Amino acid sequence: MLSFDDAQNIISNELEKIKIPHIPADLYNPVRYILSNGGKRIRSSLVLLACDMFGRNYSDAINVALGIEIFHSFTLVHDDLMDSSAVRRNKPTIHKKWNPNVAILSGDAMLILAYKMLTSVERHFLIPVTTLFNSTALSVCEGQMMDMNFENHNKVSVEDYLKMIGLKTSVLIAASLKLGALIAEANDEDCENIYSFGYNLGIAFQLQDDLLDVYGDSFVFGKKIGNDIVTNKKTYLMIKALELATGEQQKKLYELLSGTDFEPEEKIITISKIYNELNIKLLTENIINQYFDKASLNLENITVESERKKVFKDFALSLKVRDY
Amino acid sequence: MLSFDDAQNIISNELEKIKIPHIPADLYNPVRYILSNGGKRIRSSLVLLACDMFGRNYSDAINVALGIEIFHSFTLVHDDLMDSSAVRRNKPTIHKKWNPNVAILSGDAMLILAYKMLTSVERHFLIPVTTLFNSTALSVCEGQMMDMNFENHNKVSVEDYLKMIGLKTSVLIAASLKLGALIAEANDEDCENIYSFGYNLGIAFQLQDDLLDVYGDSFVFGKKIGNDIVTNKKTYLMIKALELATGEQQKKLYELLSGTDFEPEEKIITISKIYNELNIKLLTENIINQYFDKASLNLENITVESERKKVFKDFALSLKVRDY
Repeated sequence: MLSFDDAQNIISNELEKIKIPHIPADLYNPVRYILSNGGKRIRSSLVLLACDMFGRNYSDAINVALGIEIFHSFTLVHDDLMDSSAVRRNKPTIHKKWNPNVAILSGDAMLILAYKMLTSVERHFLIPVTTLFNSTALSVCEGQMMDMNFENHNKVSVEDYLKMIGLKTSVLIAASLKLGALIAEANDEDCENIYSFGYNLGIAFQLQDDLLDVYGDSFVFGKKIGNDIVTNKKTYLMIKALELATGEQQKKLYELLSGTDFEPEEKIITISKIYNELNIKLLTENIINQYFDKASLNLENITVESERKKVFKDFALSLKVRDY
Repeated sequence: MLSFDDAQNIISNELEKIKIPHIPADLYNPVRYILSNGGKRIRSSLVLLACDMFGRNYSDAINVALGIEIFHSFTLVHDDLMDSSAVRRNKPTIHKKWNPNVAILSGDAMLILAYKMLTSVERHFLIPVTTLFNSTALSVCEGQMMDMNFENHNKVSVEDYLKMIGLKTSVLIAASLKLGALIAEANDEDCENIYSFGYNLGIAFQLQDDLLDVYGDSFVFGKKIGNDIVTNKKTYLMIKALELATGEQQKKLYELLSGTDFEPEEKIITISKIYNELNIKLLTENIINQYFDKASLNLENITVESERKKVFKDFALSLKVRDY
């Protein structure tokens, strides 16, 4: 059986083998640049691992896995442009290294290349694979649009926030797993359970990210602590705090969210203090654990021997205890 | 048999029937906006007409035709953003009416929606349809990148220019026709001939556009005359003039192309004068006619009764004599 490391290595090797054209250079060099930019290949590895868990040789799922990896990279290129992010994985983003038009167009080419890989799956799986991928890809766009819209709204409900991160992050993780299961011809119920496993894990992961931004160790986490606070990001912590805060606390939160002339350090300290008063850390840990529990149950319900699920159990556990 | 008008009406009606989601509004309203923006539906009509010419009911090609129409609209949305065009079909472009991020993301959604339509073709045609579409869509991106690159180069060869307009414009027209032929299960040679017919017609059409920008009647043409000259666009006329000009003429052309502080009217007059001295109008008309002749030969070589080709003969003729 494949380990996570095996899967990641296979993906990295196979990505290098893809023949990406060289001309026009400004179209295809950015594609090579982002694909070789050392991502963790999580989603594409999940395709192979799910296929493997359900007893089919992972090689039948390679093209679909590569399609997922290229699609994920496409979303990073366009999202970084839309979010004006200058750096990704310690390197300049494409719209910074080249220019915005190059980011738009090479992103478009990547979306097409993703479809090219996906549609080279064995004929028998073409309809289920493209059907699931089409709806997933649209969902990811919907999630990104919701996320951008939230920036301009102070009143975001927990429900809407969970829906947004579900669309933006979880459906692709869920679909990656289900695609592997489809190619392994797993039964419908198992397909749904592996999908839900990925979905719930994705939500837990995103909520953890929100938590670590405030309560993580910046050295271990690898990002600056409090970045979400400084950039007025509507994280689960902020949404929950806005929901629970009253009186002076509420006034202060809205004041800090709408103003721009605050010292970053002061803003982080003030908002963290309110989070502490409102017990936001514990509330967030509770909901994260709920989603991990749901995922765990989904995995248990899958009808393959326990041993074959080990890689996913370990994966979920490694996420649960992460502090980075 | 279908007429061009029939095909256009069918496309317009079917486009209205597509169920595009409503939420998030900023993602899907722009899709509705551009799709209802009164385009001529040429490419999608060609899918239906080719299918019809080869004796298959056009209804089998509807989803593919709609996919082509949505794809074409996607290219307009992203191209308008990259080219900073403020108006399209007398209405504000999406990045103007909404904002650049909306144009990027709703464009992405349209590319996915295009695939969604295309991949709902009858199972039997899924591989040939997606294979041709994938390579065509990548070519269109390549053409747009070449076009943007040409803006910064004064030395563009005629050969490179013809390659660029081939990729940016012709391959989609050619592929639209071939997709219809594939669905009608036309033989390989006929498929290649209808593809070449579309390719050559596309080149002729684009060269005509270049010519009309200078020698058209602005009232009939519907655009301001000399716009390409004012914006330093590398048209066939300019490239040919740069190739042929010597001495003072050459100096003047490079001077006008590199400077920005010229009166538009004066620039148009000066460059038109050089075009006239170099006989550019006749040279352009000659190459346009060569491409129309090639297209005509491609159509002749198709092995269906002459009567069934009439709609395409008339279409080519209507393009040949156009002054708009």
